[in-house]
Amino acid sequence: MSDRYLSFVNSPWGHWFAKTAGLAQPLPLQRHRSGQQRLVNPVIVAGAGRLADEVQRVFRATDTVTAQAATIKGPSTVKVQGAVFDASEIVDLKQLDELYEFFHTNAKRLGQHARVLVLGTAPEHCTALPQAVAQRALEGLVRSLAKELRRAITVQLVYVAPGAEGVLESSLRFFLSRRSAYVSGQVVRLEKAVDNALEIDWDLPLKGRRALVTGASRGIGLAIAQVLAHEGAQVVCVDVPQALESLQQAARQVGGSALALDITASDATTQLQAHIHEHGAFDVVVHNAGITRDKTIAKMSEAAWRSVLAVNLEAPLQLSLALLQGQGLNPGGRIVCVSSISGIAGNPGQSNYATSKAGVIGLVQGLAPLAAAQQVTVNAVAPGFIETLMTAKIPLMIREAGRRMNSLSQGGQPVDVAQTIAWLAHPASGAVNGQVVRVCGQSLLGA
Amino acid sequence: MSDRYLSFVNSPWGHWFAKTAGLAQPLPLQRHRSGQQRLVNPVIVAGAGRLADEVQRVFRATDTVTAQAATIKGPSTVKVQGAVFDASEIVDLKQLDELYEFFHTNAKRLGQHARVLVLGTAPEHCTALPQAVAQRALEGLVRSLAKELRRAITVQLVYVAPGAEGVLESSLRFFLSRRSAYVSGQVVRLEKAVDNALEIDWDLPLKGRRALVTGASRGIGLAIAQVLAHEGAQVVCVDVPQALESLQQAARQVGGSALALDITASDATTQLQAHIHEHGAFDVVVHNAGITRDKTIAKMSEAAWRSVLAVNLEAPLQLSLALLQGQGLNPGGRIVCVSSISGIAGNPGQSNYATSKAGVIGLVQGLAPLAAAQQVTVNAVAPGFIETLMTAKIPLMIREAGRRMNSLSQGGQPVDVAQTIAWLAHPASGAVNGQVVRVCGQSLLGA
Repeated sequence: MSDRYLSFVNSPWGHWFAKTAGLAQPLPLQRHRSGQQRLVNPVIVAGAGRLADEVQRVFRATDTVTAQAATIKGPSTVKVQGAVFDASEIVDLKQLDELYEFFHTNAKRLGQHARVLVLGTAPEHCTALPQAVAQRALEGLVRSLAKELRRAITVQLVYVAPGAEGVLESSLRFFLSRRSAYVSGQVVRLEKAVDNALEIDWDLPLKGRRALVTGASRGIGLAIAQVLAHEGAQVVCVDVPQALESLQQAARQVGGSALALDITASDATTQLQAHIHEHGAFDVVVHNAGITRDKTIAKMSEAAWRSVLAVNLEAPLQLSLALLQGQGLNPGGRIVCVSSISGIAGNPGQSNYATSKAGVIGLVQGLAPLAAAQQVTVNAVAPGFIETLMTAKIPLMIREAGRRMNSLSQGGQPVDVAQTIAWLAHPASGAVNGQVVRVCGQSLLGA
Repeated sequence: MSDRYLSFVNSPWGHWFAKTAGLAQPLPLQRHRSGQQRLVNPVIVAGAGRLADEVQRVFRATDTVTAQAATIKGPSTVKVQGAVFDASEIVDLKQLDELYEFFHTNAKRLGQHARVLVLGTAPEHCTALPQAVAQRALEGLVRSLAKELRRAITVQLVYVAPGAEGVLESSLRFFLSRRSAYVSGQVVRLEKAVDNALEIDWDLPLKGRRALVTGASRGIGLAIAQVLAHEGAQVVCVDVPQALESLQQAARQVGGSALALDITASDATTQLQAHIHEHGAFDVVVHNAGITRDKTIAKMSEAAWRSVLAVNLEAPLQLSLALLQGQGLNPGGRIVCVSSISGIAGNPGQSNYATSKAGVIGLVQGLAPLAAAQQVTVNAVAPGFIETLMTAKIPLMIREAGRRMNSLSQGGQPVDVAQTIAWLAHPASGAVNGQVVRVCGQSLLGA
């Protein structure tokens, strides 16, 4: 759980040593603190696209100060905490030069922990080939900047569908805040929202909403329950009956309730439906429960294969279908699954786990259009190396490799995954559907 | 160009040292030799899908011996050189157990350099959600096995669209041969062919076909020209006028002709059209020419940005459009672009290069449906670390990292890229369209 190297290189001697030896010098990430609602500040805004008005409106609503983008070359000493480039109306390769100009001139103005966002139009929504090519090219730029800017700066690309200009706010508030500290190099697509946006309480967005979190008694699940509760949700914490004590403790901690349920039991959906019948439908369901049983395939037991698939994939599939078919999710509902970079890139010794987590991506992508018909979204987070009791058991050298092999040179915290889930669970995030967002500091190991 | 570590660990002392120290022990890859036409041999076949008949037909046509898949547990001592699992009719999660059984039982039977292929149905072609989820899950299994099996074994997933069962042969011949030695962990989709398959001469598939290769005077381009010529093509080697001498030498070497052409010149398409008017249309066009001008964005000159985009992206875009609009490509034609893992994953100091190579992916995906209407396919290879004069100039430690950070623990050779291009350029590969195939030994650095 404790990253001694991170502490060391941020001590005076450690800083000198790491610099002299040419070692990675990760900065401790700045994370969202309670009561801190605003976007990073000030932010440079550039690019003349169809999203400029909405960005300015959100900035006014959040008291965000916009700094002028430098239009002439030469160093500027005014540091900024964020940058937004609206590239949504770039229609040919020549216009990509504007992004070069912008980042060439302003890269050094970005302060530590700055948040950089490029907004575009997804290639599949482009009408002309040169436009689609230029828009697709943005991915290479964003992923390279995310790798090279360092200093805990994050960079993302958000494609906004034509006609979906009004659905940007929850994503701006996430990606331009400290909530997304461990998310970098990501590409997210916003489409027209599946539901009708209601009046949003940005301080307590989940107020009056019921959330279900599986595997909530510890680690990442507990962090998810905490963050959702903090956003106003009534959280039903689920875990296996064997973990009842820590489950009840977790429920008390978040002011929610405990539901002891083995999600792989044959009557799990019946039990859940009985619970819903008694207490009402949910607005947010987070399929967080997951297990690992690592072995190479030749040494892996059938039980290890089956149990991992049952918990990580079969249960989310069956429960999601039951919830959608049985009115277990209110309109405006959100299903969030937990995939993994192992599910994206594979991992030696985790053929069972990676198969299950790749299946979760299939679940999210396959279920999204079906769920949309009920005004429900389905998305996944794909965590990279997260500091938990589970990863603390990994042997030192492998743990160190996992921790450092990402653009932020450190592991993430459970709260980083939880904050990303809170963004996906947000009532204003109806435009995010069928997406898989990595929470991995742009891990080298996973795409 | 020479990988001393690879030589060292394959010497008796080096083997002992690497084993004792727990270092990577890459095997020198076995590559296709001239005259060696057959698939690897013997191959275990398993899985009861709709592709079994076609697999057996290809095996009979190529004298491939099929070994029985072990159906009972326990070690088998009969080594095999390949394995094909037809998972195309797996429709739910329970059936994934069959893949566990198969690989659990047979992993140890796979000899060094074995080729493993899983055949599936792409999630977007599945009719039911559990089927789509199970099929998507295969990706996690395949990518994990590709990482863990070691011993120069490669593993791929080929999704074959319903109704496209008859288009498998060129892909089987590639992925089950030594031609694909440096391709691993890849997912390829086969759709119905864009053209009508003619009688194929499997010994000289490109006989009577005209191929254009840009950047052909050295390195990867030269290797491409050589392989295409070896497959029977008349190759027109293109390079800038400054490289005329080595270009003419390359052309002589492959029994082709030289065309000195700056592909970024304003009259490049006019010059090419004049050439076509005189010599006839092409059947294969390989956009291989590419340059790097690495710098972090703050230090990058405008010229470095623009020249990289002009050569790597603008030229392939303009030339492809000109060829398709001006009858420069015969029906059955093939366009193959060269992307890069930098274009997929980004790379520090390569924001220009990664932008251009990500744009190439956009070009391939955007152009594919348009080209299909003319019975032409458009695909890309995305090389990882390839041993060339260019990569030989990289500083030692960074070069070593690039070389080792993939599942085969070594860099690829130009011929590995060329063989992959030859598969995409094959007259029987009309089912492969809009695909990006990495030639990177399953590099950690690129997805």
